Order: sequence, then structure tokens, then C-alpha cells
Amino acid sequence: MIDTSIILEKLKNAAKSGDKQELVKELNNIHYADLSELFPLLSSEERPEYFELLQEDKAADLLEELNPQIQVELLDSIPHDKAARIILHMPHDSVADFLADLSDTESESYLAKLPSRVSSQIRELLSYNEESAGGLMNSEVLRVNEAMTVEDTLDYVRKMAESDRVDFYYIYVVDKTNHLRGVLSLRKLITSLPRIKVEEIMATDVIKVNVGDDQETVADTLIKYGFLAIPVVDDYNKLKGIITWDDAQEVSEEETTEDIYASSGISTDIDEDEILVGKISQSVKARTPWLFITLIGEFVAVNVANHFNYTLEALPVIAIFMPLLAGLGGNIGTQSITIIVRGLSTGQISLGSSIYHVFRELRIGLLIGLFFGVIVALTTYLWKGNYVLGIVVGLAMIINMTLAALLGTVTPFALKRFNIDPAVASGPFIATTIDVLGLAIYFSLVTISLGYLS
Amino acid sequence: MIDTSIILEKLKNAAKSGDKQELVKELNNIHYADLSELFPLLSSEERPEYFELLQEDKAADLLEELNPQIQVELLDSIPHDKAARIILHMPHDSVADFLADLSDTESESYLAKLPSRVSSQIRELLSYNEESAGGLMNSEVLRVNEAMTVEDTLDYVRKMAESDRVDFYYIYVVDKTNHLRGVLSLRKLITSLPRIKVEEIMATDVIKVNVGDDQETVADTLIKYGFLAIPVVDDYNKLKGIITWDDAQEVSEEETTEDIYASSGISTDIDEDEILVGKISQSVKARTPWLFITLIGEFVAVNVANHFNYTLEALPVIAIFMPLLAGLGGNIGTQSITIIVRGLSTGQISLGSSIYHVFRELRIGLLIGLFFGVIVALTTYLWKGNYVLGIVVGLAMIINMTLAALLGTVTPFALKRFNIDPAVASGPFIATTIDVLGLAIYFSLVTISLGYLS
Repeated sequence: MIDTSIILEKLKNAAKSGDKQELVKELNNIHYADLSELFPLLSSEERPEYFELLQEDKAADLLEELNPQIQVELLDSIPHDKAARIILHMPHDSVADFLADLSDTESESYLAKLPSRVSSQIRELLSYNEESAGGLMNSEVLRVNEAMTVEDTLDYVRKMAESDRVDFYYIYVVDKTNHLRGVLSLRKLITSLPRIKVEEIMATDVIKVNVGDDQETVADTLIKYGFLAIPVVDDYNKLKGIITWDDAQEVSEEETTEDIYASSGISTDIDEDEILVGKISQSVKARTPWLFITLIGEFVAVNVANHFNYTLEALPVIAIFMPLLAGLGGNIGTQSITIIVRGLSTGQISLGSSIYHVFRELRIGLLIGLFFGVIVALTTYLWKGNYVLGIVVGLAMIINMTLAALLGTVTPFALKRFNIDPAVASGPFIATTIDVLGLAIYFSLVTISLGYLS
Repeated sequence: MIDTSIILEKLKNAAKSGDKQELVKELNNIHYADLSELFPLLSSEERPEYFELLQEDKAADLLEELNPQIQVELLDSIPHDKAARIILHMPHDSVADFLADLSDTESESYLAKLPSRVSSQIRELLSYNEESAGGLMNSEVLRVNEAMTVEDTLDYVRKMAESDRVDFYYIYVVDKTNHLRGVLSLRKLITSLPRIKVEEIMATDVIKVNVGDDQETVADTLIKYGFLAIPVVDDYNKLKGIITWDDAQEVSEEETTEDIYASSGISTDIDEDEILVGKISQSVKARTPWLFITLIGEFVAVNVANHFNYTLEALPVIAIFMPLLAGLGGNIGTQSITIIVRGLSTGQISLGSSIYHVFRELRIGLLIGLFFGVIVALTTYLWKGNYVLGIVVGLAMIINMTLAALLGTVTPFALKRFNIDPAVASGPFIATTIDVLGLAIYFSLVTISLGYLS
């Protein structure tokens, strides 16, 4: 990895020395991926200054990687004509993503500067749901007619190779009216005889997705088959675009973040960026709903405890063990949820093996519960000198931990069975349920043995 | 996505009908990625039967995707000579991964059947740490000498395209003694004039990794730059292999799982497979250490509560609010940790912005704390008819939630600053700390206002 602070130092020195040519050279030598880490660290005055000095294709590569606010800021800082030229170097899907974040008037002002062929393609992309295959795909595709020869195709590929906007992973074969007929790898193309027609060498069992498919399904398909790109067709099997592995990688990272957020009770209806650096009110909105559900659950726990107020008044010391039971129960329950939810999400665990995992976690919960139950029972006995109290606390611990592991396993499977995303807040839900059940069990045990305790 | 149960049905029907040719045809028409989902669903009697009917290259593709137990089971079920032929179709890194899981004798028995050039390459791969770039790379590389022309290179590429084992993303240019000099994309190669030497058109600022680099760094680098492959060199800049995007994708998924496990207190020293389906004892071993730390933390909490035993005896009812405070504090704290740990892991949050995030989370914690504090205060007052009790519980809630959000933010940053992985069990650690502090604050508030409460 490259150390951005060293590059930044170098640039600032070049800027200070006043040698503009040196600065231009330094800047354009930096890989765009490094620039994209650097630009957010610059002040909003420095950014446009440096951006202006970049070659147009590098500026386009960089722009793709930056967050929406900085994209707008930079394109606004330069003449509209130059902005349009830079946009022309970007893949259409990235342009559509950028324009989608602008107001309609602003977005139109950019579209108006682009050649009509390009702007109409981008308008089409903008019409798809942002989270669908259509919203993710690039509409520029290496496509050839089925009747073309290998030689002609190679010529065409060479010509297209001049453009930055086309991805070179596969060549898609279509009929006269753009129906997807087959696919050809570059490897196959260069190893085939020049005069053969592409339809004779293409693979015809093409794995493809529909424009309306959910982006998560698309990413999973692409990653499962290890493809570099997957074609996107409409309902009539017409080739509309391709989705590449880097897009799938990004989607997969986003979806993982959503799963992780959901499992600690953060709403995923609100955009990740908003939660990280957006308005405080949005962040509060994302976090409050599950806290509210926790509140209701804990009020139930409070009522359970209140129900045993005579027991509490008879023996107030029993209250001090409540956090111990809740803490360990919550912790082992969370471990079980985590293992099952993550396994279901990566595909290492399937619904079919639910029975196996439920019994497995039950055994694990019981084993660990016994271990901790004995420790807690002994410690309590030695501390408070009351062996019945030790047994009660220890027994409550065993039941509590076993139950927590069981609940943490059964709940995600049950949610999945009813087609509910198991990641969605199983965490807070189960922690609260464990609190309620744990208290009920503990206080019942205490109440039963009250005669031997005081 | 393809429905595996339909394929399975089809296969079983073909098997039942006794038409072996039909079964062979059906089987070999299935994509290996689908077969890899299917095979674990078959019984251990069916698996070798079906495996035997696969073409050798398909068998090799399938084998790569299966888990180690099934790999061994299948290769053991066929004659050693055939097993060796199948292995020859696999990329060397996959073979090394498979052999690494076997005993030395077993591993040797396979190596002995391979051509010596191949077996010595695999032996070298086996010598690297499994989690290093060397352990991850494929040693078969498209490599050409710097003095070669474009035409010669194209011929060489065509020849190599026949082999399954070589990845075709870039062509690496080396000098006579295999020092990495540059890199060439297939795009550049096919668009260049035939007589030009590759050294004139290659890119010389190659981004590469060292054999000893950690696999996580390698995956991050590859994903950051959007490369399809990255070359691996030794300390003398000699080209040893390449790592491809699908390997990086797998590493990245593994590392994410480790982060997720760590954050709920599951040790990552033990292999994920062991935790999911291995020996129960291994699973217990992975889960007990952090539970034990939680136990110690909660004993501190118990002692804090015990310290206030006079308060508890004077007013046992206060005990019933303990789960409410702990539950909501734990929940909001977990939200903050989740946001910061995930942000640090994806690079959306850096240490440089820690001050911003600490103050942001402090404001969020205070706002949400105020909201829930007021609800809890009112509910308690209306329920128990004591407004001082309402104020005490509400105030404890506000302080507790604010503190939890703050701790959940500061702790991961602090761990990161000292180069400790912030994912490692921040979760259980903070939940326990919040329990201890929350109880101390609550009981202190109650003790101060005891005169107005009873």
C-alpha cells in the first residue's frame, strides 16, 4: 500500500515551489485510486486547484471514485464544457449514479452538453431503480453480430479498445435485433481461426440477469460463477448492458455493511453515508426504532421483576446477580446469532441444515452453561456463605446460557424460513427476550427456594 | 439463480432410469459452480458415483470449490492415476491448498504422481505461510521476456490459452533472470503493432506485492486499484506468481467473517469451518475466552451493586429498573461500535476523523438519551406515582446512553491508534463496561435521593 501522507507532502511542496509544470507532472503520475484517497484529505480550496491540473481521462477515473458531494463540488468548479468532456470519459453507469444525486435542473444542464447518443443512453439508465441490475449496469458493451467472423470481430475489438468506457472481459454476440445469442471470451477469440463465424465458437448457455433483478442477487450470481462480467437483458432477451465484477464487489460490500448494521439494530432504510457523516437527525432516525423496541421489551423485563417484588423485598441481595445473568446470556446468545446469520449470508449454512445447527448450538450452550454455572455457583457460595444461593444462581446461569444459545440459533432460521432477512435486528430482539426469560427463571428459582435462602 | 433442487431431481431421475449416457450428459452440462452447491447435498455414496462420470476438467473445476473433507473423499474414491490427471487441471494454488490439509504421507502420495516440474512448484507454494501472498498466489503466470515482440507474445499467449491453469488478465514482462520489469494488458497487446518490442509498450510502474505480505493487505490493494490480478515478487523483485481478483474476493469475505465473529467475542484463532461444523470442543474453545472476560466484568458489576446493599435493602424496588438501563445502554453502545468498526474496516472512516466522529456520536447519544430518558421518567412516574423515582431513572438513562455511545466510539479508535484490531471483542468488552458504569451511576443517584424516594 502507498502512504498517502508522503504523496500529499510531495504535492504540497511542488505547489509551494511555484513550479506548476512539476506539480502537473507529479499529480498525473499518481494512480487514480491513490488520488481518490488523497482528495478527501485536501481542503475545499485545494481540491479544484489540483483537479484542474489533471488530464481529462485521469480526472474522469478519479471522479468515479469520489463521494457525491466532492463530485459536484469539482465539476461545478470547472467550465461546463470541460466538465462534459470529462464526463464523456466515464462509464455511463458512473455518470448516471452521479447525475441521480443532483436536482433535475442540474442533471439536465450536464445532459444537455453531451452528444445525444450518450445522453439518451444515460437517460435510460436513470430510469431504472438504483438498486436493480438496470441501475447498476454499464450500457456500453462489446457486442458483435452472430454472422461476423473472428477476424472482423478482432478488428472491431481493436477499434473499441481505444475507448475508456468499454470493459473488455467478454464479447457478446447478438442477432440483428439485439437479442442476446451467445458469449465469447477474448481467450477463445484470439485462439480461433480468423475465417470462422463467431456463432460457431460462441458459448450459447449464457448466464444472464434481467434489468429488474435486485442488485444483491446479481452480485451473488456473478461472484458464485466467478465471472468478470454478466450480461443484462430485458424481458425480450435484448442485451441492455453488462455488470462487472468491481460493481458486484461494491454491492457485496454494501450489503455486508447493511447486514452488520441491521444485526445491531440500525435501520438500513437510511443511506450508509447519511448515517456516517450526514445530518444528525437522519442518524437518530436510523437508530431509534430498534432502541424503541428494546425499550418495550425491557419494560416487560421490568414488569417480570416487579411481579416478584415480595421476593425482592424478602431478599434484596438477589438483585445484585441480575447483571451477571443478563450479561453472559446476552453474550452467548449474540455469538450464536452471529454464527448463524453470517453463515446464512455467505451460504455456508442453509435452511436444510437447521436441525443440525440447532442441536449443535444446544450442546455448545449446555456445555458452556455448565462450565460457567459451576464457576458462578462456587464463587457465590464462597462469597456469601450460602450454598443454596450458590446453587440457585448457578442453575439460573446454566438454564439462561443454554436457552440463549438455543434462541440465538432458532430465531434466525425461523426468520429465514418466513423469508424475513435474519440479519434484521435479531440482535436487539434476542438480547431483550433473553433478559425477560432469564429474569423470570431466576426469580422463580429464588422464590421456590426462598425458605432456604434467608 | 439456478434452483439446485430441480437439477438434483433431474439427476436422480436419470440415475434411476439406468440410462448412464443420459446421466453423463446431464451431469457434464451443469456449470461447476452449480455442481459445487449440489455435491454437498448428495449422500457420501452418491458423490463418488457422480464424480466418476465427470469430464476431467469439469471434475477439476468442481473440486476447487468443494470443502476439504469432500475433496479428500472424492479423490480417494478414484484411482490415483486419474486423481493425478484431475489435479493437473487445477491451478497450482488450489492444489497446494488441498494438499496442505492432508497428512504429509497422503500429500506425498499425490505429489509423487505429478510431473516433477509441477510437483516442485507446488512444493514451493506449500512452503509459504497459508495466510501470506505466497500461500495465496498461483505460480503459473503469463510471462514473456522484455525483448520479445508483440507478434511473438501473441503467439505465446495463444499457445498458453490452451491450458486451464493460467489466468489471462495481464501479461507480465521479465528480464532474463525473471526480474519483474513491466506489465501489459491484453487490450494493449492486441492494439499494438506486431513488430514493436513489449518493453516499449509495457507499463513500468507495476503495483506488486511481496510473497511475505499478509493476505488481507494483498486483497485490499487489489480491490482498491480495481485490478484483476496483482503480481507477487520475492525480495529480489523476481516474479513468483499472481493473485487474482477471485482469490482477493474470498480473502475479503473471510476477513469480514473474522471481523464479525471477533466483534461478538468469538475467537478467530480457530478456523471458521471448525466453528461451524467441526468438533464441539473447538467451538467451545473459540467461544469461551471472551465469555470468561465478560464473567469477570460482570462480577465487577455484581460487586458494584453489592456495594450499595444498604440502598437496595432500603428500597428493593429500584432493582427492577436495572435490566432497562443495561439493555438500552448496551444497545446504543453496540450501534456506535458497529458504525465505527465497520467504517474503519471499509476505509470510510479513518483515524484522522476520530474527533469528528466522537463529537458526532456524543451528540447522537445525548439526543437519543434525552428522548428515552424523558419517556422512561414519565412512565416510571405514572406507574409508581413517585416523581423523584421518575427523575432518577430518567436521568440515569440519559447519562447511561450518552456514555455508552461515547465509549462505543472512543474504544475502537483507541484500539486502532495502538494498532490493535478494533473488531477484536470491542463488543463484549464495552457491553460489560457499560453495565459496570451504568450500575454505579444509577445506584449513586438513588443513594443521593434516597430521602425523597421511600
